[in-house]
Amino acid sequence: RKDGKKPVPMKVCTSIIDGLKQLYFTKVRPLEEQFKFGHFFSPLLNESDFEAKPSVLLLGQYSTGKTTFIKYLLGRDYPGTHIGPEPTTDRFVVVFHGAEERRIPGNTLAVQPDKPYQGLSTFGTGFLSRFEGSQCPARLLEEISLVDTPGVLSGEKQRIERAYNFVEICEWFAARCDLIFLLFDPYKLDISDEFKSVINCLRGHDDKVRVILNKADQVDQQQLMRVYGALMWSLGKVFRSPEVCKVYVGSFNSEAPINEKVNPYGKPLFEAEQKQLLADLYEIPQRSTDRKINEFVKRVRAAKIHILLVGHLRKQMPSMFGKEKAQRKLLEDIISNFEAVQREYHLPRGDFPDPSRFRDILQGFDLLAFPKVTKSMIQGLENVLTVDIPNLVKQFDNPFP
Amino acid sequence: RKDGKKPVPMKVCTSIIDGLKQLYFTKVRPLEEQFKFGHFFSPLLNESDFEAKPSVLLLGQYSTGKTTFIKYLLGRDYPGTHIGPEPTTDRFVVVFHGAEERRIPGNTLAVQPDKPYQGLSTFGTGFLSRFEGSQCPARLLEEISLVDTPGVLSGEKQRIERAYNFVEICEWFAARCDLIFLLFDPYKLDISDEFKSVINCLRGHDDKVRVILNKADQVDQQQLMRVYGALMWSLGKVFRSPEVCKVYVGSFNSEAPINEKVNPYGKPLFEAEQKQLLADLYEIPQRSTDRKINEFVKRVRAAKIHILLVGHLRKQMPSMFGKEKAQRKLLEDIISNFEAVQREYHLPRGDFPDPSRFRDILQGFDLLAFPKVTKSMIQGLENVLTVDIPNLVKQFDNPFP
Ligand SMILES: Nc1ncnc2c1ncn2[C@@H]1O[C@H](COP(=O)(O)OP(=O)(O)OP(=O)(O)O)[C@@H](O)[C@H]1O
Ligand SMILES: Nc1ncnc2c1ncn2[C@@H]1O[C@H](COP(=O)(O)OP(=O)(O)OP(=O)(O)O)[C@@H](O)[C@H]1O
Ligand SMILES: [Mg+2]
Ligand SMILES: [Mg+2]
Repeated sequence: RKDGKKPVPMKVCTSIIDGLKQLYFTKVRPLEEQFKFGHFFSPLLNESDFEAKPSVLLLGQYSTGKTTFIKYLLGRDYPGTHIGPEPTTDRFVVVFHGAEERRIPGNTLAVQPDKPYQGLSTFGTGFLSRFEGSQCPARLLEEISLVDTPGVLSGEKQRIERAYNFVEICEWFAARCDLIFLLFDPYKLDISDEFKSVINCLRGHDDKVRVILNKADQVDQQQLMRVYGALMWSLGKVFRSPEVCKVYVGSFNSEAPINEKVNPYGKPLFEAEQKQLLADLYEIPQRSTDRKINEFVKRVRAAKIHILLVGHLRKQMPSMFGKEKAQRKLLEDIISNFEAVQREYHLPRGDFPDPSRFRDILQGFDLLAFPKVTKSMIQGLENVLTVDIPNLVKQFDNPFP
Repeated sequence: RKDGKKPVPMKVCTSIIDGLKQLYFTKVRPLEEQFKFGHFFSPLLNESDFEAKPSVLLLGQYSTGKTTFIKYLLGRDYPGTHIGPEPTTDRFVVVFHGAEERRIPGNTLAVQPDKPYQGLSTFGTGFLSRFEGSQCPARLLEEISLVDTPGVLSGEKQRIERAYNFVEICEWFAARCDLIFLLFDPYKLDISDEFKSVINCLRGHDDKVRVILNKADQVDQQQLMRVYGALMWSLGKVFRSPEVCKVYVGSFNSEAPINEKVNPYGKPLFEAEQKQLLADLYEIPQRSTDRKINEFVKRVRAAKIHILLVGHLRKQMPSMFGKEKAQRKLLEDIISNFEAVQREYHLPRGDFPDPSRFRDILQGFDLLAFPKVTKSMIQGLENVLTVDIPNLVKQFDNPFP
């Protein structure tokens, strides 16, 4: 770790997430419900949004070793594993923890309220029949879930025959996971058009992306440099950021030891890379917790401003006649109302929602149907931000919680 | 070499170039003069255009080892060598062969008719006082000249103080040289704005560019991968082509053997790379000859078409009255006259000059002042293309000339 601190143990992460959940359901969600916050921001959160384990998405051309890599991480096959030189994995498989070994069809998985996959229903059965859950009691899965994917294909035909939009699905998982491994191997370096679309849809999640140059022991030292250079050359063209994305070079296969015949100098490099990759992986729970806290804070701030805005507008409504006209007038003046709230509560402009979007949504509601905003409501949210969350997070910095 | 053939010996290259020169001065240039071809195409060639040795341009941030690399290639210092960790080379130095060791000031060099640097005069004394020739009897210089350059600087200040446009000068040399080495070292990887402009001006000469990641023995194996990856990442962004440009990784310094302490696995790699780099270098005479033949053929084709066009127009001029008006009329119809010549002689459209440019230049001449075009003139040029050049080039394919 860059700052030299040790990774935070999973237990702590879990207890922080539990704390956030507690706070949300007792102090935040009730207000969100009363003020229809879900319509203005993002839908109300439920249990599964907190309980979902951090997850890792694997992407790459077919046969680059994605499924083999998962086996390497788990120390075992997941139920339904297919490994082979031809395109093998023919569906999206989420691999998660469970005492029993079990395969769960996509349609079933997408309706389970305790799983974070309800959102996938919108892609229809075309996709859901190519979606599967695989449950098994591997140790790593207690902390992280993995998402295996079908290889990105270069053939137009196979792509057309798919009953779903591969890129959209990848985008959905990319937005929700905590780390994305892009696998390449020395013989599958080319970035096909489809793979390029996949990589393009990762933009905005650049910080999650790690590249793996797998099967690196199959070429000699000089070829490895060429292959690696060619890979970086193409990736540099595809990713816009000037920061180089992290690449791990090695061979991740529990069945086969590192081959020392072709490149007798590679082993120490590959071993060092493997170690760093695992360290990166073990940081995920903390990174995921950081991300969740961050999003939670953003949400509570937004909820507070939302309630202040609604309260400010509601206060100006007449109690008797001309309600509709008054509401219309208030919404026309939305900008000056925003400014008034901003000044009164000394809030940063950047924390406010988009005024015209806010107005458009509010048009569908009767301002007077919202409850009156009380000081204690706002104070409650303020406390979450300034007392409760900092208390929770303190455990991060305390090595002996 | 890709095709498995052995490089063509320098002697053969020299004799081919001598042959071209012979052809040019006896069969081509007399016609070019009569038909003012130099005004329409590029200036008439002179001895130095044929005699100039193939040359190699070195570019890179300061202190990446450009001057040290030249010393490594020559096995000696060139007169005026400066090597040091701070920006040392403060001028463009062309290093060429000569029996005596000598330094020649830029102003002198740019007026020597037997040297290919007259064109540099247009950059003025601001540049010429930062330009120098360095002559010495190193073996490699019998075949190749080298161009050492001041390091590309990242400081705005030093750049502003320059009395010439660095990028324009680089462009001038890039267009005229046969190979361009871009040097980097693990601690000078960043591509500054100026370096980017320099690299941008190499576009169109992509096939000449070779990258050297120098001082590669100063970092361990894993760092080397990172550094190399980061380099390729940035280069991929700067160069537009999907083909990866060739990179040599190593340490090119005759004073210091390859350091094996930091990276005990690097030596075999660096040695293999050094070998390939030298092989690449030794191919330059042939590549340069190829390029010269190619340009010569283009020139003769263009001269033939030029003469046919002038002849076709001249033929239509009245012998007595209304000459000016007739010439104006012919020039207005330039497109249909082009088409007529193209049809009559079955010439490819792409070989013709730009019609409006041709017309604009021809306006400055009196059509009747050109000599009459005879069959034997055209036949002479045709023979150069179909008999003389092929005969010359045959020596390339004949291993026992
Ligand atoms: N590190 C490795 N070294 C050598 N061979 C490997 C390595 N990883 C995987 N393989 C082999 O490559 C082939 C493809 O592996 P695998 O099925 O895991 O790839 P995949 O990326 O999951 O492919 P698909 O996209 O088709 O599901 C298999 O034959 C496997 O044994
Ligand atoms: N391969 C190498 N390994 C280690 N050190 C090197 C190597 N090549 C050059 N150096 C050292 O780096 C420093 C800069 O070298 P040099 O002067 O040749 O660079 P340069 O690119 O010509 O710089 P400038 O642009 O300032 O002329 C010197 O101290 C030199 O000894
Ligand atoms: Mg697979
Ligand atoms: Mg120098």
